[in-house]
Amino acid sequence: MGTAFDVAIEPVKTEKKPRRNQKTEQTFSAATEPPKKRISHPRNVETGKAKRKKPVKILFLGGVGEIGKNMTAIEYGNDIIVVDAGLTFPNGEDMPGVDSVVPDITYLAQNKDKIRGVLLTHGHEDHIGGIPYLMKELNPDTPIYATKLTLMLTDNKLQERHIQNVSQRVVEPGDTVRLGVFEVEFINVNHSISGACALAIRTPNGLIYHSGDFKIDLTPVAGSPIDFKRIAELGKEGVLLYMSESTNIERAGYTMSETVVGTTLDHLFSENVNRRLIIATFASNVHRLQQIIDLAVKYRRKVALSGRSMFKVVDAAVKIGELKIPEGVLIDVEKTKNLFDGELLIVSTGSQGEPMSALTRMAAGDFNKVTIGENDTIIISANPIPGNEKMIYRVINNLYKKGARVVYESLEKIHVSGHACQEEHKILHSLLNPKFFIPVHGEYRHLKRHAQLAEALGMPERNILIPEIGNCAELTDNALKLGENIQAGTRLIDGEGVEDYGTSEVMKDRLKMSADGVFTVALAAAGNYVINDPVIEAHGCVFAEGETETELRAVVKRAVESYDYESGNKAELSVVVRKALKNYFYKKTKQAPLIVVSVLDV
Amino acid sequence: MGTAFDVAIEPVKTEKKPRRNQKTEQTFSAATEPPKKRISHPRNVETGKAKRKKPVKILFLGGVGEIGKNMTAIEYGNDIIVVDAGLTFPNGEDMPGVDSVVPDITYLAQNKDKIRGVLLTHGHEDHIGGIPYLMKELNPDTPIYATKLTLMLTDNKLQERHIQNVSQRVVEPGDTVRLGVFEVEFINVNHSISGACALAIRTPNGLIYHSGDFKIDLTPVAGSPIDFKRIAELGKEGVLLYMSESTNIERAGYTMSETVVGTTLDHLFSENVNRRLIIATFASNVHRLQQIIDLAVKYRRKVALSGRSMFKVVDAAVKIGELKIPEGVLIDVEKTKNLFDGELLIVSTGSQGEPMSALTRMAAGDFNKVTIGENDTIIISANPIPGNEKMIYRVINNLYKKGARVVYESLEKIHVSGHACQEEHKILHSLLNPKFFIPVHGEYRHLKRHAQLAEALGMPERNILIPEIGNCAELTDNALKLGENIQAGTRLIDGEGVEDYGTSEVMKDRLKMSADGVFTVALAAAGNYVINDPVIEAHGCVFAEGETETELRAVVKRAVESYDYESGNKAELSVVVRKALKNYFYKKTKQAPLIVVSVLDV
Repeated sequence: MGTAFDVAIEPVKTEKKPRRNQKTEQTFSAATEPPKKRISHPRNVETGKAKRKKPVKILFLGGVGEIGKNMTAIEYGNDIIVVDAGLTFPNGEDMPGVDSVVPDITYLAQNKDKIRGVLLTHGHEDHIGGIPYLMKELNPDTPIYATKLTLMLTDNKLQERHIQNVSQRVVEPGDTVRLGVFEVEFINVNHSISGACALAIRTPNGLIYHSGDFKIDLTPVAGSPIDFKRIAELGKEGVLLYMSESTNIERAGYTMSETVVGTTLDHLFSENVNRRLIIATFASNVHRLQQIIDLAVKYRRKVALSGRSMFKVVDAAVKIGELKIPEGVLIDVEKTKNLFDGELLIVSTGSQGEPMSALTRMAAGDFNKVTIGENDTIIISANPIPGNEKMIYRVINNLYKKGARVVYESLEKIHVSGHACQEEHKILHSLLNPKFFIPVHGEYRHLKRHAQLAEALGMPERNILIPEIGNCAELTDNALKLGENIQAGTRLIDGEGVEDYGTSEVMKDRLKMSADGVFTVALAAAGNYVINDPVIEAHGCVFAEGETETELRAVVKRAVESYDYESGNKAELSVVVRKALKNYFYKKTKQAPLIVVSVLDV
Repeated sequence: MGTAFDVAIEPVKTEKKPRRNQKTEQTFSAATEPPKKRISHPRNVETGKAKRKKPVKILFLGGVGEIGKNMTAIEYGNDIIVVDAGLTFPNGEDMPGVDSVVPDITYLAQNKDKIRGVLLTHGHEDHIGGIPYLMKELNPDTPIYATKLTLMLTDNKLQERHIQNVSQRVVEPGDTVRLGVFEVEFINVNHSISGACALAIRTPNGLIYHSGDFKIDLTPVAGSPIDFKRIAELGKEGVLLYMSESTNIERAGYTMSETVVGTTLDHLFSENVNRRLIIATFASNVHRLQQIIDLAVKYRRKVALSGRSMFKVVDAAVKIGELKIPEGVLIDVEKTKNLFDGELLIVSTGSQGEPMSALTRMAAGDFNKVTIGENDTIIISANPIPGNEKMIYRVINNLYKKGARVVYESLEKIHVSGHACQEEHKILHSLLNPKFFIPVHGEYRHLKRHAQLAEALGMPERNILIPEIGNCAELTDNALKLGENIQAGTRLIDGEGVEDYGTSEVMKDRLKMSADGVFTVALAAAGNYVINDPVIEAHGCVFAEGETETELRAVVKRAVESYDYESGNKAELSVVVRKALKNYFYKKTKQAPLIVVSVLDV
């Protein structure tokens, strides 16, 4: 696990930015571009006689007008950088049978020679899940830049899809990398995963600050609080454009610190001291895991891991020193027979009720390694992601039925969000004091609310742009406007096949059949007549009372008889039959099954 | 609208119960049964030498282990009463294409001669939506008892399904009706619809209190607060069994009074005085509507209604005096051209983002009577019912895109629940002080939590029963236990057809096709060989890269060739082809489309 990984990652050669001296900073950046206007205060430029410059193009490939599959590209002349490459897990109602959805990256594939690098802000699926589909279509030497944990998780994905030899470069917060005309500085932020960064992107037209996903946690479990000092410096230097995530923009106040969860968990450990404990949480929330491990040590419990991704992340996080587990604490879940219930803690995946996860199978009595009983307390340390409520509540119901105690978010403070609420956003806006603002990572309502927040803080409405997927925002040092759209959209991943949503009939057919079923008719036509009885079959159809096969055969027969054989057009025959059946079903039951008519020439 | 209705309802002959004198009460009930033990304190009976009695059977037909389609029957000897007949709107993911789900009422149909009456606690869909499907199968003279508004809404449903001559009897809170051995008293409670009642059901073995849906609102907009006095009297008299709804049992504290919403709305009216206002809410929440109308009058706005059910409920509620609208306030939505935006309020359905509702169509720009623009403020005075989030957020996104202001629950206190929270439940338990308790109306987690609450209040665990659909609880004056299960479950309503979930392949096929599509093969077999090329079609399938029709034809061909014609078993031929294709798809793409093979004899 992760061994091939050590080889694949090369540490990046970065230059630590001096933090205090803005002069030095300009000199430094002068290496690639004339220093003059480049990192000047855009506010000053506005009134001065700014030289006409090419715009920096910001291309929105995903994560705007939606939650998920975040992906933005920034282009200037012959250089493109890509920020994040996420995926979305679709809901079965809109896209039945689809495993995941990634951005349409046609534009990037067409311009792959311009792409100087892919920057990943952190290791969540909605930021890295699309990486294999992206890298497959880029030049093999296109490097990925990210912090350690992010790269480890990314590398797992590349290996699963057998994508080799991708150059993965480890950065640390504070590092700056040059990518063509761009210089990108990684800024430490807090989030529900370690190694999350914002990006300060120096462009020929000015500084762009991309928030990544973040919250303000001034008492983090490990690592540092968000780098306020550096953010304030950037604000002073002058931020031309702020792009910020908007996930929790509807929530007033502040997101609580991750340490709050530790306090609640401590109470629960002490309350359940003689019971077996099972905690389900996101594997990627390493700080949550650290708190859980620490409590296990404090309360003298052994820790058994359960779930594939839990093993993967723990392995990776221990290796890079993000997670500290004392010797002898971890135990194989199958070797726990000699332990009393109060001596064991199982840390499991499945906090979202995912069908194949360890917790879901335990709850269903379908996991032979762990049998849930009355002396178990299960703590679900996560909130349901919108759309997952039914799944997770099913798991909770099943656990209760087995007599276990269940603790979940409606009942206790056992989870905090990783995203900033309104007051935190106000702080970031105030520190950065940008000239232009583009809200990202949210449905339209989130982006709109974020725009309103920026306006409330004094930004003119005309300096704010609410983007849609496919938009190209053109940014100069004194203007932000929409340019020409690029090709963009969604690609559906379904098993080994890949389908493009917009261009295929697949989803339309699936939705039709899932609503009303399929009705098939096979006819044999010899020369000018249909011979024998047609074969009919119905699957997933409902019929009105008294509706019989005889009646359906009669409909087919009448249609066949009405068909003009002299025309000699056999395709027409199937159209006639389909139409007759369609009318019949609609009149009879208001149903519209998919009708497949096969005409065999014999 | 509602004219035929006035004829259909006959006022019920009920006897007002004297409230203070328990003696009188016993005398009254003596009319049907010897008074002795019947309404005695069950706590005393427990230790005394109670006469062996037949148990009262409580049959759970719906609403336990789930939210929705509430239905309970109570049986003693030759008498059955039915409490509520609800439906559920299923989610498309589990039951694609299904319009609604109602309880399997086979048991009631088989015992229809015993059924003395159907009692409806209030007019929400999950309590009355299944009425047409129930009444269709009962004896035509089986009466329905409910308060006025409930019956008006019920009558609408019966008329829509062309069910005639059902005897509908109006009751008022405080009324008692006799139904065989049972006497049922309607008790006033608060809820998010007018005319909601709990039921005090006197049985030969003791008193059962069924909560209906309720909350405690001591400052209701209209009508009376929940009838604490009567509830306390019943508690003193002795409640053998308490059955209580559990919807909000996970929420601490109290549900706010409906009047809170009026205060928020007043602020919003005054803030938006020059803008057009559109308020979407549940049509059935008559008290909400009353507050909205009152504010419209206060702020001198005309009110235009929008949405079919809004017209229906307003018409009904005005007729029975539940809703008061001053002359000249209502206006046709098509005759509002001369009004300034600040002079108009539109009250609309669609607070759940229902696809065909007025609000959804306005938001999509698909409703020619109302065009949304920048001077509109839309207030969504409702919470999303779990599962409806995506739909309603889509509507909100669309409204924002049209430049409107949108106010919804994440942002303001513009909705309160109709269900009791924990502290309210504690009050009811304490007042009623029942011997036995059965939590109802909730998923298992809700029922379990409610059981825990009852235990925390001092009830022994053995006196609590958590029921499942199909259970029969047997209640004597000193025992509550499970008897033999009855037939129960779900019936799916899909268009004009009705399907039984458990017994049909319909859902299984639909889910299969929605996940992976359908692949059809038509073969013509003449005597001992397949002639010509088979006709193949794929719908909703995805294919691996490079997978071609030629390849698929080859699979079919090989299968056909492997088939032993000498066997003469044509059915076998389609099995062989199906199997070959199944293996092929699985190997190639891990997909499992539905495969339909039609073999034509020519």
